[in-house]
Amino acid sequence: MEKGQLLYEGKAKKIYSTNDENIVWVEYKDDATAFNGEKKAQITGKGRLNNLITSLLFQKLTEAGIANHFVQKLSDTEQLVRKVEIVPLEVVVRNIVAGSLSKRLGLPEGAPLTKTIVEFYYKSDLLGDPFINNDHIEVLGIATEEELQKIKQAALKVNEILVPYFAERNVKLVDFKLEFGKTADGEIILADEISPDTCRLWDKDTNQKLDKDIFRRDLGSLTDAYEEILKRLGGAEECTK
Amino acid sequence: MEKGQLLYEGKAKKIYSTNDENIVWVEYKDDATAFNGEKKAQITGKGRLNNLITSLLFQKLTEAGIANHFVQKLSDTEQLVRKVEIVPLEVVVRNIVAGSLSKRLGLPEGAPLTKTIVEFYYKSDLLGDPFINNDHIEVLGIATEEELQKIKQAALKVNEILVPYFAERNVKLVDFKLEFGKTADGEIILADEISPDTCRLWDKDTNQKLDKDIFRRDLGSLTDAYEEILKRLGGAEECTK
Repeated sequence: MEKGQLLYEGKAKKIYSTNDENIVWVEYKDDATAFNGEKKAQITGKGRLNNLITSLLFQKLTEAGIANHFVQKLSDTEQLVRKVEIVPLEVVVRNIVAGSLSKRLGLPEGAPLTKTIVEFYYKSDLLGDPFINNDHIEVLGIATEEELQKIKQAALKVNEILVPYFAERNVKLVDFKLEFGKTADGEIILADEISPDTCRLWDKDTNQKLDKDIFRRDLGSLTDAYEEILKRLGGAEECTK
Repeated sequence: MEKGQLLYEGKAKKIYSTNDENIVWVEYKDDATAFNGEKKAQITGKGRLNNLITSLLFQKLTEAGIANHFVQKLSDTEQLVRKVEIVPLEVVVRNIVAGSLSKRLGLPEGAPLTKTIVEFYYKSDLLGDPFINNDHIEVLGIATEEELQKIKQAALKVNEILVPYFAERNVKLVDFKLEFGKTADGEIILADEISPDTCRLWDKDTNQKLDKDIFRRDLGSLTDAYEEILKRLGGAEECTK
């Protein structure tokens, strides 16, 4: 596989073309951003950790039968994925109250939810990624009601797989954000990344945060926490490379 | 029917008990509030106009078969309604882009929607009436999925009745807010009020605002606009009493 031209540079990743028109080359960057880009930093090693963690998690999801974009890990900071057109939705799945949900519903952080909550946010930097509902999604032409139900069901299935997977590794999967993409033949598959940048992960015993909230709230070393997650997921060998 | 003790005083209405435990006595006040109570005023005549307009609209909805709380108009500012426990949801139905929807989706005010949008807001002054989705409603224990579907269907039916009703009277029903309540035997029925306080109503030809946005945005005489609505709804005789 040959790396071609830069197609797109986002906040956390660069996407390059390859000699296969259905495959793109992803390079994870060390940039950290929060609050819709208002807070920024360079954190050496973050790109590598997210690339290794997301590769492990997508392999796990592939084994569990979740249709997704992951093809293979290339290096510490690079991977190949199927080329998709990203559906402009952030699909947030919540098991425990945290972050904006705590503010929205007036519930205490850490309270377990009686039912898994799925929320949709419209991916728009200009609008600040607003929270939207199914009717908005249909009016915006983002997805049909049927596509949206498939996306929601896939998101809940990812949750069913990842909650026990993390729990076995002494980590609570508090909440996480997924993105989906459409392939050239119109199939909607799981895309983007699943990492401590896109999940809230708390130590099962101490509730210590092992995710991007460390950066958002200035709680210490981000890479130490991400290394801990990588270790618990069995990526320790790669960790000491 | 005898008026009993004050049960509840809200921003726009006072509710009294009656000698029938299933009926309450509603008195419409002249108080105007906006932006979650941040903007306040006394507008003489507003209570009368809202009481007369909402009485006309609920009669219309009753004739069309919408289960609702309205019993009868008592005076210019008073009516009897069935006693319900209000479901803590603001159910917003939108036909044309305006207000918060314009900001949320980045669409221009006045743009017609390809599909009627229904939104749910959690009635909580403390939280600022946050926008929520079906999963939040279930977690909060506000309504079951089945009850919510009934509420949404009823809201859409109200819209189907009121859009042509206003259109025949040269008024665009841009959007409106409904509330529902549970009767003692658990039936969910339409409650609260439907008035220029709770609807956006624009003149069909000029798009002149004939609703509470006049107060929110300081656009002139609120009572002149509400009188115009009452007149167009055929309440002119009552109007000159």
